[in-house]
Amino acid sequence: MKGFDFEEERIKQEITKLGAKRVLLQLPEGLKPEAPRLAKSVEKNHALPIISADPCYGGCDIAVNEAENLGVDLIIHFGHAKLLKHENIPTIYVEARATISVDKAVKQSLLLLSKYDKIGLATSVQHLQTLDQARDILVRAGKTVIIGDCGQMGYAGQVIGCNYSNVKSIANEVEAFLFIGGGIFHALGIGLSTSKPTFIADPYDNRAFSIDDEAQKIIKKRWACIEEASAAKTFGIFVGLKPGQKTFELALSIKKLAEKHGKVAYLLVAREITPETLLEFPTIDAYINTACPRLSLEVPQKFSKPVLTINEFRVVIGEWSWENLIKKGLFEN
Amino acid sequence: MKGFDFEEERIKQEITKLGAKRVLLQLPEGLKPEAPRLAKSVEKNHALPIISADPCYGGCDIAVNEAENLGVDLIIHFGHAKLLKHENIPTIYVEARATISVDKAVKQSLLLLSKYDKIGLATSVQHLQTLDQARDILVRAGKTVIIGDCGQMGYAGQVIGCNYSNVKSIANEVEAFLFIGGGIFHALGIGLSTSKPTFIADPYDNRAFSIDDEAQKIIKKRWACIEEASAAKTFGIFVGLKPGQKTFELALSIKKLAEKHGKVAYLLVAREITPETLLEFPTIDAYINTACPRLSLEVPQKFSKPVLTINEFRVVIGEWSWENLIKKGLFEN
Repeated sequence: MKGFDFEEERIKQEITKLGAKRVLLQLPEGLKPEAPRLAKSVEKNHALPIISADPCYGGCDIAVNEAENLGVDLIIHFGHAKLLKHENIPTIYVEARATISVDKAVKQSLLLLSKYDKIGLATSVQHLQTLDQARDILVRAGKTVIIGDCGQMGYAGQVIGCNYSNVKSIANEVEAFLFIGGGIFHALGIGLSTSKPTFIADPYDNRAFSIDDEAQKIIKKRWACIEEASAAKTFGIFVGLKPGQKTFELALSIKKLAEKHGKVAYLLVAREITPETLLEFPTIDAYINTACPRLSLEVPQKFSKPVLTINEFRVVIGEWSWENLIKKGLFEN
Repeated sequence: MKGFDFEEERIKQEITKLGAKRVLLQLPEGLKPEAPRLAKSVEKNHALPIISADPCYGGCDIAVNEAENLGVDLIIHFGHAKLLKHENIPTIYVEARATISVDKAVKQSLLLLSKYDKIGLATSVQHLQTLDQARDILVRAGKTVIIGDCGQMGYAGQVIGCNYSNVKSIANEVEAFLFIGGGIFHALGIGLSTSKPTFIADPYDNRAFSIDDEAQKIIKKRWACIEEASAAKTFGIFVGLKPGQKTFELALSIKKLAEKHGKVAYLLVAREITPETLLEFPTIDAYINTACPRLSLEVPQKFSKPVLTINEFRVVIGEWSWENLIKKGLFEN
């Protein structure tokens, strides 16, 4: 797969340094096709490669249990920055930085940004190395550029599906956000977390565009979910099982909150939450998802029942107003 | 849910006896709708119930890792008999025995069994308590009835999706098998493991029927998979991650066997193997599944590449003949 840096020389050095004999390779869906080639390369370094074939969406999802069960002495996790503070098994993060230039896409964004002076810049881990260059382009066009860094993420300007703290922290100082990267998911998260006009500079298509219409559509859908959940008597509270999710105590407090408001609430734990998961619990009217906010953006229309974020649930029970939710953002972080 | 014994009085006693404070409830898909009601009952016994929402297909799949991560002090596993020799966390098995009578369905089978004298009787855990009654009906009709017990399963006459040893052990002594239960999956497994005429007495529909035509269809499909895999150069060997699967050493030996025969082979570990899993590895031509043989019976047409059992792979590399496979059965056990 061209276009990403898999850091094979570093992998080789780490295997040798650690004397690793059994290596677990974990890649997110878009990068998984590279797994056999990388496994071959591990094998050439005299270690046994094992490919994790389960879905993997983030740095929260390090296959620690799997590695322990398999006697693995090194996990190589691709495509995400380190998120866990500590892993029980030596783990190296190969962030798979994209080698593509973003200049053209950022230049395309200048026309869209013409009425804004102060721009917040953000990106996913794949394009972090382009932030300086992108800032220069914007500054040369007369913009003031702010890159948020509130210390929760590994890098300044970085956003991930469940943490938009870097953009939230500068939202009051900027008029619009520019996200560098492919897909609309992260940019939607920025727009929904900050209520600021948000644009994408997509280096794969070499184009820039606004995601505001899309964000409005999502907000309408979320409102419909909240409305439907307002009539719900019985709630399921999802707790994610991935090492970086660990939301059990949070879920427990939400259960108590729901009960205080006269709701019946059950704790449900899951590795993967799919539309099929919900079909197994016909007596549950609505869900609160403490695991991965991606679900509420990506697959809501596929779910047979409302699956709310915690903040949305606060609207359902009347703790927050809808306006307050829009102001504070759909997500916790 | 009527028709199954959830042993709520025993659950109550066990919670009290163990002083359990945090209880994980794990149910297979068909029984999951009962989970909220059972959770409520656990809560009444002053323990915090947590429902596992992930798929669960067998006694191999005890949520031990999940329980450890959540600080659970008791797992209640429903719908399967104990399979693991040892669990790290106290676990009770509620087998969810069916309360339905099987007499009518067994009587319906007598006409189908008219040309056979020696009948092997088998069932899933839900109907084990009906075996004596079923045997009586067959004996009164002049049949010799054998119920296999070779010690691998918890009960005489019991079969599960990955272990047909109880029927294999008596296949030479009987002319046909009668399986008591719903669905065709276990009966298919019996037919494909023994090559004996196999009938189902289905107490839910109160009817009896042969699964031999269905077994022939499966055999044709399996043959097509083996044919397709014979042209494959690159194999993925699936290792299941569920506590009772633990097939890593077996998978490693299959990898070596594949390499001995000039194939390229990769170890892939997974909790769930789905049609989507395969789409992530376009460079792999065919798979060998050491995890759960159910996959090869239930979803082969949904897989984009052949997913072979270990025994089928022995045919691909010329270690076994097709006839030998049919004789020894598609599955290991």
